[in-house]
Amino acid sequence: MTKKPEILKGVFAAALTPINEDLSPNYKNHAAHCQWLLDNGCDGLAVLGTTGEANSYSVPEKIAIMENLVANGIPAEVLMPGVGCCAIADTVELTKKAVELGASGVLMLPPFYYKGVPDDGLYAAYSETIERVADDRLRVYLYHIPPVSQTPISYDLIERLLKAYPDTVVGMKDSSGDLENMTGAARKFPGFAVFTGGDQLTLGLMKAGGVGCITAVCNIAPHWLKELYEGWDGDKGLELQDRMAQLREIIISFPQIQALRAVKARQTGDDSWRESRPPLVTLDLAKSQELYKKLDDFGFSMPDQTLAAAQ
Amino acid sequence: MTKKPEILKGVFAAALTPINEDLSPNYKNHAAHCQWLLDNGCDGLAVLGTTGEANSYSVPEKIAIMENLVANGIPAEVLMPGVGCCAIADTVELTKKAVELGASGVLMLPPFYYKGVPDDGLYAAYSETIERVADDRLRVYLYHIPPVSQTPISYDLIERLLKAYPDTVVGMKDSSGDLENMTGAARKFPGFAVFTGGDQLTLGLMKAGGVGCITAVCNIAPHWLKELYEGWDGDKGLELQDRMAQLREIIISFPQIQALRAVKARQTGDDSWRESRPPLVTLDLAKSQELYKKLDDFGFSMPDQTLAAAQ
Repeated sequence: MTKKPEILKGVFAAALTPINEDLSPNYKNHAAHCQWLLDNGCDGLAVLGTTGEANSYSVPEKIAIMENLVANGIPAEVLMPGVGCCAIADTVELTKKAVELGASGVLMLPPFYYKGVPDDGLYAAYSETIERVADDRLRVYLYHIPPVSQTPISYDLIERLLKAYPDTVVGMKDSSGDLENMTGAARKFPGFAVFTGGDQLTLGLMKAGGVGCITAVCNIAPHWLKELYEGWDGDKGLELQDRMAQLREIIISFPQIQALRAVKARQTGDDSWRESRPPLVTLDLAKSQELYKKLDDFGFSMPDQTLAAAQ
Repeated sequence: MTKKPEILKGVFAAALTPINEDLSPNYKNHAAHCQWLLDNGCDGLAVLGTTGEANSYSVPEKIAIMENLVANGIPAEVLMPGVGCCAIADTVELTKKAVELGASGVLMLPPFYYKGVPDDGLYAAYSETIERVADDRLRVYLYHIPPVSQTPISYDLIERLLKAYPDTVVGMKDSSGDLENMTGAARKFPGFAVFTGGDQLTLGLMKAGGVGCITAVCNIAPHWLKELYEGWDGDKGLELQDRMAQLREIIISFPQIQALRAVKARQTGDDSWRESRPPLVTLDLAKSQELYKKLDDFGFSMPDQTLAAAQ
């Protein structure tokens, strides 16, 4: 296969990874969830990101998760899997696998163990990774998420990477929560595909030339984000943005990933959705009830998900 | 083998990992360095820690590093390898391998990607790991290094782990730089083996009942740390401590790991010692010369290392 992937855009879910009682990934639930996301507004799936708890899985586990998604009917070309690890060898292995499977892009964290690493070091890590993957189908989306990785991706670093790998480094997910940083990047680097990681910043980024959003709350609200993405520059743009911002506020008043799992458990009637892999802690039932009440009071509802959707 | 390891104490080096031009580990240099450390004052070797750039190596690479050390003549019982990864499956695999090889202990980081994780989550991660390793030869030393991991290990967490796994969780390396935290732990948990990660805090911790130090600067000064460890409560205790503190000040006025590599390059005449794996950046020659001059002016010298030492 030598088809070159298109540059991605639109609404992407930072998809959750459901698990079984023994903490192994629940492939069937994962595929069913991803299919539901695609059926209800998502253009693509950023699986194995921060919300997907990628770093809580080993490389073989992550490869199995990608393979099973595709085996269970999720089209590889909608995938933008998270592949960035602390060790270059790991990032290379995951990236090669994602490209082989046919993913249109990969979301690449910088190495995140050492803090305060200079851009020279991050550049060397990205460069070494790209050279080792050595595949002209590779499309890298840089992952800027300083609140978690504590390893920011500066404009200088982007500029150097774009100069060295203009056909490979094609975009960024900006989860800094800093609208100015992401709009600045969209303006400074024309053609560079900037996604926001913040539901509440989608309209602001789109106005500045951004290409879409990749968010955690999308796991429960792909329909709302789709309406926002399609309607941001219309009469109802502000209203649609405000609605998403309010929904996000409810979710982040709880530990976010666990809250989203609890909402999926309620939607599907499958309690296994509640469980998180350590070190994340499952939301208890009292907190879950509190969350459900807030969502009901807000008038939030989700399209049904039936398991049939994945079959 | 059913021999139960002794609780460790004394001077441990957070050993550097030398590499080849292709960034692969240089096993021969690694073993020679480790042998030199043992010959010149080290009681043990905390390989694959922060200074050993463990997280820049994949699990198979880390296993090969441990196996090659033992194959090259380093006694397994002096080893306290770093094994803590973000993913439980990885930590379990490395820990099993370390125990199988005969390491007397392992140094275990908590999962470090997510920040602000509650103790319940860290407890669950350690507990799941220990249960999966399921080996009564396992001796875990917790790794408290908040400046890098951003994931502190609280007294509450230690207390819970000691209660659940009194024969397995036996100590801690405290690299917080906070003397009060480490002396507090040594006093609060009698029999719990607290090592300091700070050369300059060795005397203070020993006075409070600590058992030793595991440091980066030990890579170049095992002889000085040995004198300090053996003489801290004698007439020259303060003087020996002050000498180590001054040496450390010189080293940390440069990027620490890279500075230590430069000193090893000078000692051995082997320039490959200079190179770091990305994302760390090699110390340039001008900076290296500046470092050498500072060390010479201070009157620092190292025992010779000959390759024969490893053979």
